[in-house]
Amino acid sequence: MADIIIKNAYVLTMDPDAGDLKNGTVVIEDGKITEIGENTKENADTVIDAKGSVVMPGLANTHTHAAMTLFRGYADDLQLAEWLEKHIWPAEAQLKAEDVYKGSLLACLEMIKSGTTSFADMYFYMDETAKAVEASGLRASLSHGLIELWNEEKGEADLKEGKRFVRAWQGAADGRIKTMYGPHAPNTCSEEFLTKVKEEAHRDGAGLHIHVLETEAELNAMKERYGKCSVHLLEDIGFFGPDVLAAHCVWLSDGDIEILRQREVNVSHNPISNMKLASGIAPVYKMLEKGVNVTLGTDGCASNNNLDLFEEIKTAALLHKVSTGNPTALPARQVLEMATVNGAKALGTETGMLKVGKKADMIVVDMKKPHLTPCFDVPSHLVYSAKGCDVRTTIVDGKVLMDNYRVLVMDEEKVIEEARTAAEELVARANA
Amino acid sequence: MADIIIKNAYVLTMDPDAGDLKNGTVVIEDGKITEIGENTKENADTVIDAKGSVVMPGLANTHTHAAMTLFRGYADDLQLAEWLEKHIWPAEAQLKAEDVYKGSLLACLEMIKSGTTSFADMYFYMDETAKAVEASGLRASLSHGLIELWNEEKGEADLKEGKRFVRAWQGAADGRIKTMYGPHAPNTCSEEFLTKVKEEAHRDGAGLHIHVLETEAELNAMKERYGKCSVHLLEDIGFFGPDVLAAHCVWLSDGDIEILRQREVNVSHNPISNMKLASGIAPVYKMLEKGVNVTLGTDGCASNNNLDLFEEIKTAALLHKVSTGNPTALPARQVLEMATVNGAKALGTETGMLKVGKKADMIVVDMKKPHLTPCFDVPSHLVYSAKGCDVRTTIVDGKVLMDNYRVLVMDEEKVIEEARTAAEELVARANA
Repeated sequence: MADIIIKNAYVLTMDPDAGDLKNGTVVIEDGKITEIGENTKENADTVIDAKGSVVMPGLANTHTHAAMTLFRGYADDLQLAEWLEKHIWPAEAQLKAEDVYKGSLLACLEMIKSGTTSFADMYFYMDETAKAVEASGLRASLSHGLIELWNEEKGEADLKEGKRFVRAWQGAADGRIKTMYGPHAPNTCSEEFLTKVKEEAHRDGAGLHIHVLETEAELNAMKERYGKCSVHLLEDIGFFGPDVLAAHCVWLSDGDIEILRQREVNVSHNPISNMKLASGIAPVYKMLEKGVNVTLGTDGCASNNNLDLFEEIKTAALLHKVSTGNPTALPARQVLEMATVNGAKALGTETGMLKVGKKADMIVVDMKKPHLTPCFDVPSHLVYSAKGCDVRTTIVDGKVLMDNYRVLVMDEEKVIEEARTAAEELVARANA
Repeated sequence: MADIIIKNAYVLTMDPDAGDLKNGTVVIEDGKITEIGENTKENADTVIDAKGSVVMPGLANTHTHAAMTLFRGYADDLQLAEWLEKHIWPAEAQLKAEDVYKGSLLACLEMIKSGTTSFADMYFYMDETAKAVEASGLRASLSHGLIELWNEEKGEADLKEGKRFVRAWQGAADGRIKTMYGPHAPNTCSEEFLTKVKEEAHRDGAGLHIHVLETEAELNAMKERYGKCSVHLLEDIGFFGPDVLAAHCVWLSDGDIEILRQREVNVSHNPISNMKLASGIAPVYKMLEKGVNVTLGTDGCASNNNLDLFEEIKTAALLHKVSTGNPTALPARQVLEMATVNGAKALGTETGMLKVGKKADMIVVDMKKPHLTPCFDVPSHLVYSAKGCDVRTTIVDGKVLMDNYRVLVMDEEKVIEEARTAAEELVARANA
């Protein structure tokens, strides 16, 4: 007896060794995919009739700051320095642990509803985000943000907390939670500190999540300080490897791209945040052409302002067509790979495609809608026509988190109300 | 006794002479707004409690080809010439009148559901699109596309049909339908033909809808043929005026922008289509700075691939931030103006803001959702966080077309099914 059977679906496997099934069945048992085919002889406790829908791997959001849902729309259309220094930092200074829990739970709710099944996070009070992930049923790679700022004492304290977090939560929630070290960026942490963090991560077998060359200001600051850019500094201290998740990577030279490729670094491309903050356009077409593992992230809700990865998918496909002048750049299947297969590779999860033996993280997208009619090509519709709100069912680790648009793992109204109250009180404290 | 009262709403008036009401009431009678205030003493047949929602002007989609919903996702990620010549044109050659009706009705359904209350269209078999507009309750400015291609006979036939359409439908559907002349573009119509069309339009008091400098190829072709670009050619033949709606306007010089400003031409900016086809980035920031009336359009569904104007709103705000390197470019209220006030001006409708005496075209956006929580700034949320699927109620000309997510003016499933069948048969004919 299986746990879940999804039948009558268009099965978009994203498995390069297998095609799609126009009308197929996916069987789930003990958190894993046990069968994919036209039919099954199995029975299951839960049978989901997905007629007129697509079942596909859940999406991976490889760079966000979940609790920043609390600052959604709090300060927009501003210069970066003013945005950070006058608005975001003063508000963040007022954050309490319980706020981070409420904001993270809201983020999990939003991700479940829009088809994201795993995410990578870097922030503060990360125990609270971990608790929200545990409660929500999602999968996540979490890191405590380490911002040394050339202050040895702060660096030590941050690293100690980062290490405590890594050791406390590695493999928690039935393995749904992984932990990483989160040195903030090469222009906010010293060379010595970055080296030390890398060594701790290697000792613990944990990954490294870092911002790299998000802005031209970072590039200029690095060149002034070190006479080389962030990528070359990190390369020179032996920081890079397949365990590194580098967010943004906007201001890369061709030489930087070659380093990222050689070291098998995972890149999280965040097109909406980069556009909204006018950070620039990452050379994604070139990175993909060279074979760099490029994934997609939303960044935090203060610079997006939502966590809908379908928006990121469409925006990536559009942005790199216009920026390269090539309408064949980043075709639909390639962008879907970024959000699924590549994302899973970056997070080191046994997910990202529908294949027997993989963990059962998947979503059902409802195609019986005016804006998805007619349908000649499923990947094209998922990239150019669909939205997060077309996701009707979300399954992680073989557990149904949302079915037929109803979230089963939390009280949606309560989560919304508590986050709203927490955000308003927080901002009132910041403005007091 | 009023017809409709919307109460307990955040009223985003978009009226430059009035502010927003955080908790207000809008009263509608005989298709017009008769009262806006904190409360009303009126009663009405229909009372909509919009607690937790925003009421705002309906959106104007100023450039689309509605029936092209039939080609949604039919041919993507291709070079422009291959896309047009090998896929779109052969499929369009198979279009029958009834297909255009079904595709247009699907488009109207999609627009009602995503908050668009008026649109400008240029296509073939326009009687059918007009019938769909009449049936759906939307407002539209329609034109038969005139593609002379330096063939005098074809030009005459097109112009005759265009004139017949203008005269048959001007002011139809209680004034909800306006008609325009639709000369396709300066690189598909001769100077003489454009002059003749302009004269006919002036004679009939109808507007002119035209594609202008969508691609660099058009710019180069015009320079080769005339030694000047499309804008200068149109200026020299006296084509321009406030009755002209110019779509795309991507490849503009500063001198072109000055002409558009002086002649009070309305520009329809179509960022998603321009990005998807890699046409280029229109100088929207400059146009707005100079005072050109820039509006938003989705273009047809073969190059977008949906009609959700909220996506166009967010994309416009993002694209011109990154392309100018200025995160304060196109702030939220300005982009909302493009989609409402500016759109109404371009279409010559008495809509686009909530103000006593204006026609009652408005939408109610549901803010009680995870991705719209918390809410510090309503315009910011509408631009950066909301989507078309957050629209719960759509009203045009004082008639409720959708209430609480339920479309009242057509059988949604039937419209979807008929459009799907028509599209599949059409493509089968094209591939036969």
